[in-house]
Amino acid sequence: MTTRLEVLGIEGVPGVKPGDDLAAILAAAAARTPTTGGGLRDGDVLVVTQKVVSKAEGRLEPIDPNDPCSHKPIVERESVRILRRRGDLIVSETAHGFVCANAGVDLSNIEQGYAALLPVDPDRSARRLRDRIRGRLGITVGVVVSDTFGRPWRRGVTDIAIGVAGVAAIVDLRGTTDTHGRELRVTEVAVADELAAAADLVCGKASGIPAAIVRGIDQGWLRESSVRAEIVRDPSEDLFR
Amino acid sequence: MTTRLEVLGIEGVPGVKPGDDLAAILAAAAARTPTTGGGLRDGDVLVVTQKVVSKAEGRLEPIDPNDPCSHKPIVERESVRILRRRGDLIVSETAHGFVCANAGVDLSNIEQGYAALLPVDPDRSARRLRDRIRGRLGITVGVVVSDTFGRPWRRGVTDIAIGVAGVAAIVDLRGTTDTHGRELRVTEVAVADELAAAADLVCGKASGIPAAIVRGIDQGWLRESSVRAEIVRDPSEDLFR
Repeated sequence: MTTRLEVLGIEGVPGVKPGDDLAAILAAAAARTPTTGGGLRDGDVLVVTQKVVSKAEGRLEPIDPNDPCSHKPIVERESVRILRRRGDLIVSETAHGFVCANAGVDLSNIEQGYAALLPVDPDRSARRLRDRIRGRLGITVGVVVSDTFGRPWRRGVTDIAIGVAGVAAIVDLRGTTDTHGRELRVTEVAVADELAAAADLVCGKASGIPAAIVRGIDQGWLRESSVRAEIVRDPSEDLFR
Repeated sequence: MTTRLEVLGIEGVPGVKPGDDLAAILAAAAARTPTTGGGLRDGDVLVVTQKVVSKAEGRLEPIDPNDPCSHKPIVERESVRILRRRGDLIVSETAHGFVCANAGVDLSNIEQGYAALLPVDPDRSARRLRDRIRGRLGITVGVVVSDTFGRPWRRGVTDIAIGVAGVAAIVDLRGTTDTHGRELRVTEVAVADELAAAADLVCGKASGIPAAIVRGIDQGWLRESSVRAEIVRDPSEDLFR
């Protein structure tokens, strides 16, 4: 277990368009960001917010900017199950199994006249970024694709992981012992969500910093993983669906 | 918005007993931890896990270590509303308004024969720690008291804030504009929860690191606040209670 981490916002990332090589853009911006000490390094975790991933992957759909409801049919189509409706808000389950507001369809921080949809397969998006960074820089990083979700029972939003590659979604501490030698029973820590949350502390919504490096994590957490397989809870074991 | 943070685990914290001066213990251990560069500094956020706060405050109750159910009456008493039961698990609402497993009553990382209860008023616990650090060291830090909660729909636990002092529970970005000049509608970020999550990346359950420093946050976030007033969602506006 590491006792020191750095969270480094990647500065100067230009506007991202469909088809752009996001890995190359982020690697170059990281190399120019003074706090990174020269850019991405082996063993870093790169946390990338969903919006730039969706833009690079062309997950944009035209909407009527003068009609505040024109994205609603997209929300309905992106939902496999509606859990709650209240006023403008729809809480629904997406094809990925995420439960979130408006099926992740978002109008902020994109050009007017477009809605951004979630990546089709955010774990795959993360793997592609990891593979392209390996190919380009010859280094191996973990990648987390993050998005901003609300929570039941608590006000405010936090960033969580919707995709990962090369870093554990969940670290299972079950079976290890606590400091009194008693077996820890249920301590599966969703470290990918905690990495996304840590990165959001430097990726403000309004600051134009769409990605961050988390440097110094336990290198034992660097392994193949998947948000969909490890974090998305099966409805059969879910008490709130 | 800051673009570089450090998360520094406080090492060498001794066992904490009821009545101990936790602020003094953590300040001394922080000063001895090499990564902190001499200890706590003005503008740092000190994240302290609930277990040591509960121990210092004497929030321990004897249980029969040979009876795996002897903490159940404590769980029932600490619950104001039961939301779900399945097998051994009770998801309930506490007097603070938190919705969590077993009303926050916990048997791990404490002496056998005791259960640890949540602090009576975790915001007050955070204020006391902040005030004692100010009195002792003459510096002003933010304090987050964190605990480990599960979530609906997602597997794995993450650390969240149950109390704060001197640092914003929620930063309200509503009304500021995004990078396309459009007004951001709902972006109330629960930064206290993100600080707790970031700290948990260095405070492993099994590692004996019960507190961490987050250094470098936006100094505009350092203000009076309260988890109970700002993050706990009123049942009337809650879609899942």
